[in-house]
Amino acid sequence: MSSQQVVLHEFDPKDMPFRRLGPSGLRVPVFSLGGWLTLGGSVVGDPVKDIIKTAFDAGINMFDTAEAYAAGKSELEMGRVIKELGLRRTDLVITTKLFWGLRKGPNDSGLSRKHIIEGTQESLARLGVDYVDVIFAHRSDNTVSMEETVRAFNYIIEKGWAFYWATSEWSAREIEEAFHVANKLNLMGPIAEQCQHNMFHRERPEKEYDPLYRKYGLGTTTWSSLASGLLTGKYNDGIPEGSRFATTAMFKSTVESLQKEEGLEKIRKVKELTKLAADELQTTPAALALAWVAKNPNTSTVILGATSPEQLTENLKALEVLPRLTDEIMEKIEAILDNKPPPPTNYGRPPLDRLGRL
Amino acid sequence: MSSQQVVLHEFDPKDMPFRRLGPSGLRVPVFSLGGWLTLGGSVVGDPVKDIIKTAFDAGINMFDTAEAYAAGKSELEMGRVIKELGLRRTDLVITTKLFWGLRKGPNDSGLSRKHIIEGTQESLARLGVDYVDVIFAHRSDNTVSMEETVRAFNYIIEKGWAFYWATSEWSAREIEEAFHVANKLNLMGPIAEQCQHNMFHRERPEKEYDPLYRKYGLGTTTWSSLASGLLTGKYNDGIPEGSRFATTAMFKSTVESLQKEEGLEKIRKVKELTKLAADELQTTPAALALAWVAKNPNTSTVILGATSPEQLTENLKALEVLPRLTDEIMEKIEAILDNKPPPPTNYGRPPLDRLGRL
Amino acid sequence: MSSQQVVLHEFDPKDMPFRRLGPSGLRVPVFSLGGWLTLGGSVVGDPVKDIIKTAFDAGINMFDTAEAYAAGKSELEMGRVIKELGLRRTDLVITTKLFWGLRKGPNDSGLSRKHIIEGTQESLARLGVDYVDVIFAHRSDNTVSMEETVRAFNYIIEKGWAFYWATSEWSAREIEEAFHVANKLNLMGPIAEQCQHNMFHRERPEKEYDPLYRKYGLGTTTWSSLASGLLTGKYNDGIPEGSRFATTAMFKSTVESLQKEEGLEKIRKVKELTKLAADELQTTPAALALAWVAKNPNTSTVILGATSPEQLTENLKALEVLPRLTDEIMEKIEAILDNKPPPPTNYGRPPLDRLGRL
Amino acid sequence: MSSQQVVLHEFDPKDMPFRRLGPSGLRVPVFSLGGWLTLGGSVVGDPVKDIIKTAFDAGINMFDTAEAYAAGKSELEMGRVIKELGLRRTDLVITTKLFWGLRKGPNDSGLSRKHIIEGTQESLARLGVDYVDVIFAHRSDNTVSMEETVRAFNYIIEKGWAFYWATSEWSAREIEEAFHVANKLNLMGPIAEQCQHNMFHRERPEKEYDPLYRKYGLGTTTWSSLASGLLTGKYNDGIPEGSRFATTAMFKSTVESLQKEEGLEKIRKVKELTKLAADELQTTPAALALAWVAKNPNTSTVILGATSPEQLTENLKALEVLPRLTDEIMEKIEAILDNKPPPPTNYGRPPLDRLGRL
Repeated sequence: MSSQQVVLHEFDPKDMPFRRLGPSGLRVPVFSLGGWLTLGGSVVGDPVKDIIKTAFDAGINMFDTAEAYAAGKSELEMGRVIKELGLRRTDLVITTKLFWGLRKGPNDSGLSRKHIIEGTQESLARLGVDYVDVIFAHRSDNTVSMEETVRAFNYIIEKGWAFYWATSEWSAREIEEAFHVANKLNLMGPIAEQCQHNMFHRERPEKEYDPLYRKYGLGTTTWSSLASGLLTGKYNDGIPEGSRFATTAMFKSTVESLQKEEGLEKIRKVKELTKLAADELQTTPAALALAWVAKNPNTSTVILGATSPEQLTENLKALEVLPRLTDEIMEKIEAILDNKPPPPTNYGRPPLDRLGRL
Repeated sequence: MSSQQVVLHEFDPKDMPFRRLGPSGLRVPVFSLGGWLTLGGSVVGDPVKDIIKTAFDAGINMFDTAEAYAAGKSELEMGRVIKELGLRRTDLVITTKLFWGLRKGPNDSGLSRKHIIEGTQESLARLGVDYVDVIFAHRSDNTVSMEETVRAFNYIIEKGWAFYWATSEWSAREIEEAFHVANKLNLMGPIAEQCQHNMFHRERPEKEYDPLYRKYGLGTTTWSSLASGLLTGKYNDGIPEGSRFATTAMFKSTVESLQKEEGLEKIRKVKELTKLAADELQTTPAALALAWVAKNPNTSTVILGATSPEQLTENLKALEVLPRLTDEIMEKIEAILDNKPPPPTNYGRPPLDRLGRL
Repeated sequence: MSSQQVVLHEFDPKDMPFRRLGPSGLRVPVFSLGGWLTLGGSVVGDPVKDIIKTAFDAGINMFDTAEAYAAGKSELEMGRVIKELGLRRTDLVITTKLFWGLRKGPNDSGLSRKHIIEGTQESLARLGVDYVDVIFAHRSDNTVSMEETVRAFNYIIEKGWAFYWATSEWSAREIEEAFHVANKLNLMGPIAEQCQHNMFHRERPEKEYDPLYRKYGLGTTTWSSLASGLLTGKYNDGIPEGSRFATTAMFKSTVESLQKEEGLEKIRKVKELTKLAADELQTTPAALALAWVAKNPNTSTVILGATSPEQLTENLKALEVLPRLTDEIMEKIEAILDNKPPPPTNYGRPPLDRLGRL
Repeated sequence: MSSQQVVLHEFDPKDMPFRRLGPSGLRVPVFSLGGWLTLGGSVVGDPVKDIIKTAFDAGINMFDTAEAYAAGKSELEMGRVIKELGLRRTDLVITTKLFWGLRKGPNDSGLSRKHIIEGTQESLARLGVDYVDVIFAHRSDNTVSMEETVRAFNYIIEKGWAFYWATSEWSAREIEEAFHVANKLNLMGPIAEQCQHNMFHRERPEKEYDPLYRKYGLGTTTWSSLASGLLTGKYNDGIPEGSRFATTAMFKSTVESLQKEEGLEKIRKVKELTKLAADELQTTPAALALAWVAKNPNTSTVILGATSPEQLTENLKALEVLPRLTDEIMEKIEAILDNKPPPPTNYGRPPLDRLGRL
């Protein structure tokens, strides 16, 4: 993006709260926009522009994509729209993710030095920018040494192609190893983990990663915060025709699970949450579910997906819900969910008044 | 203290809450007992034993002293009483401090390798123990390189003469440098700072040290939490005959300041705190002042001084006050004190929703 | 600035003394020219050219600015004039400072990697040069880890966009931490601190930073050496109409303080200095005040502000005063000021004949 | 030296000035007492006790010896006297030097790990102490790797057998290498160099070592400050019968040189210094020569030799001369000596107003 860019649109953060992304100095909006499944995929052309413009005007300046989203078309569409809207590069936080390249050759995916460097250059070209703010390893790669991966991401940063790197869906052990290797080599470690986090998916983000938050200040950029829509309540009375669950092969097993004991239990909880949202917060279960993730002290940003400007605006009601999640409300939610991961055991020792930080 | 020691007294922590001492694994009671001015000084003989026994029976197993306290007699008395009471060494957390040796020679004080090593051996001999738990640098020494001091304290630890080392009344820059040097040399840094902290002395412990709590998990062992008695309310109506302020030369300037504008303002605040303590907490201003320091999330232990078992028991009422210091009460206290150190400036930038840890 | 530049003006250092900038090999003139409030702000167009030409012809080849000065116009004006005057890049020492960017977005200010890299590129574009000699962190940023900031400034240096980096108005603890981190990562630490230093503002530059001069050879580039004009004596008989104090909102609190006890005391001292300057040095109080800062052994360069070539020439009389500041005169000045920061306490130990360096 | 030692003699530093020994925190008297040639050699028995007692009572608490001095007898005598006088160990700074062991076997000398460790233990046994304050490498050993030597001296320190280590008569390059190796291995470097320094021997201590003073704060403990007696003026009119020069084989070449041009020139200068001392300082040339070395800012302590208490007392008159060495007197001395080592060249560049520290 050259310095001669024509800026048509000034950024106004409005009432959007901003948080640091993990230990970094980068400030990200509490809600950001992701391109998974939608932008460049189920949504193309002008609607993409409408959604991004709506987001930007609502104070969302962070846009997340990946080389694998819609086989590169997500990056292409996002880059095109940013240019057409005349957004200033410095106003934006652009993040992308690498792992599954667009071709099927033996070196077209994973976290080898070759794919990280080649893939980043291709992503930048599709996005039409000189650099992204954060580049994520979209998955871990157990066929590459951690040293090679950490070195390659630091190469990307030294080249000026990204300011930071991060992980997505890595285990706590893998992230620990990344910090170990980065520290040993005096290189930069990851600043965040892009993980699934919602009311039905809590073990990893709330318990497994806990030591990483405390020791390294790891941030999270969460996805699937509506549990593929389950938490919106739209499956409360069965799976509607034309819905994502009804039409997308990817969700077959999810749909099947909903017919089983565990699934029925979830639906029951969503109904209770729907009532709580209506009675006590005058809001939708979706807005409640999104605000609930944002409320978590380790969440940096909740990535929203949207197939229309209206859906985005609807979900951004979570911003109003967020400050209303008092301790009392949070306790009622826990009572409904009944799935809070237990804290680490103290092995019978006398409790500490205060643990302090490690 | 040989391993054949006869143990007459078992330790029972009772309801005493324990905290980690900074980043260390050492657990210290929220209230501990210090020998400054009292034990071995204004109090000698059997009363020392009574005070220490009372403390131990109340769940206080940490005893703090210094080579300089009563010119070595504090260590001697403390060591004698521990032996006479038959306390088990492992039950105890014994801490002492080095800086001012007992003689006036050019190498008898400060933080040179020579005085740290020679002074520690003399302290252990006076205490009659093989090791202390923590050895503090009683002040900083700007005539010795930080490297020499950090190396010497690590030597003490490697010799088995102490488990940890710590600082007292050092500036944030000096503590930062200690971590720098320790880190560079792969040696141990300090685990705590023994600092003055009370309702009228807040700038350093609450603001200057703040980055050290966040970055290194530094603990504090606080002294003068009653502001030399001012916060007990006993000077509310003038300085009683025979009181410490009336009789001790060291407090001359403190006494003088009480007659000035600033001092009168403090007395006025103590009166308000006295009323708040009585009306809302049914306790004494002293217990409130002590609990207030203990409530601070960065306080590891509040060191109590005592001239009699009764005074100690009286002050330990702070333990009951501690859980009653709700957000509401804390706000009322702040309103009275009106001296909360301001947070670091943000230089006019948009605020962050959540700062996170660095 | 391309290598084909047409050089119209050769640099002649004349009698200007040069000093190393802290531990670096960069030589800076004892007096340099700064753009704060003036160049691009209260002074625009041809007068800027006249001032810079006058400075250059007087042996001043160091020009200091900041992205925040006049919202970027200071850099623009300075860059334009340097080009128009045909000054050779290698003859110049150009310094700028980063912190407050020109826009108000969440990532447009501070010391995050994003703003340091984006901001530097924008500053270079406004200045029209390929690199500056030193880039300063205009303030500290407690919302960014020191590691991120140190790494980002080293990135700037590795890119060839600056030769050195430095700090401005950081606390001693923060500078200490910067050296710690730089040392740990084998990166470059800061070479100087741009700090306020004048006869009425001494504690930080003369006492707080002292260990940094001794340990790291830190240099200083001082500002406000005339205490916003107070030391010129022009406010000795009240605040003249049209003066900066009378017309600039920024100085409201300064003006108010002049009416109070502390301010009247300062005016009294300025009057005595005015007499000393006239009687014993046949010079102005302004020249005396500037020479006094330059005389400090830790001062690298005194940054002068000027609204006209005449004012600059007038202030450069300090050059003649500098060698006449004998020990005797310096003692007389101290007697008038009566505000010399005390040396660090020795805690009652026997004095050392000679301290040596640590 | 056990802790049950009987202390008969309290140390009183009187008017003796103390200095830090190089970068260390150890404080040493400006004049110290050495055993070379005298104690245990030309002087044995009670006179040794008289000399040491005279020194101690005059504020000298540092005693320097070496395993090689009088083949171990110097250490034996010094140890015996310290015990007999009942001096407290912590009051003393005891230094010894290792290189030439007492036997002639292939491993009985030099700076191998074997001789450093075995030799130190034997020195401590002769001295009858648990540790010395500083252990010197009496010469450099070009048949041993610097790493082995540095590691071995650090082993001595970690064992508690010495607090610091130092060098004697090493070249600047060798000392530089010692710092390099110590730094690389995170070990302790030397704190001082025991070097010859007097009015006729200046090149090495004043020029060759200069960067080591500035970079590492290296201290010096100087010997031969009277140029083997030449500077006392006693050879001004020829070599008296019975004098050291007349009777000691070791000084044969010195004596011969005095008959040559260079020697006669020295005698001429000593005569001028004798006149200066008498006329302007009312003192002896010896006291002047000693004070002149002590005046050097890089001198830590001047080691005095003495064959009688009276000689020591006589030479300690240098203490009174020291503060009278004004800039003016120092310039007159330089004019007489005419042998000041020139400063490092600047290769024709414009001079710096102030060099700053590296």
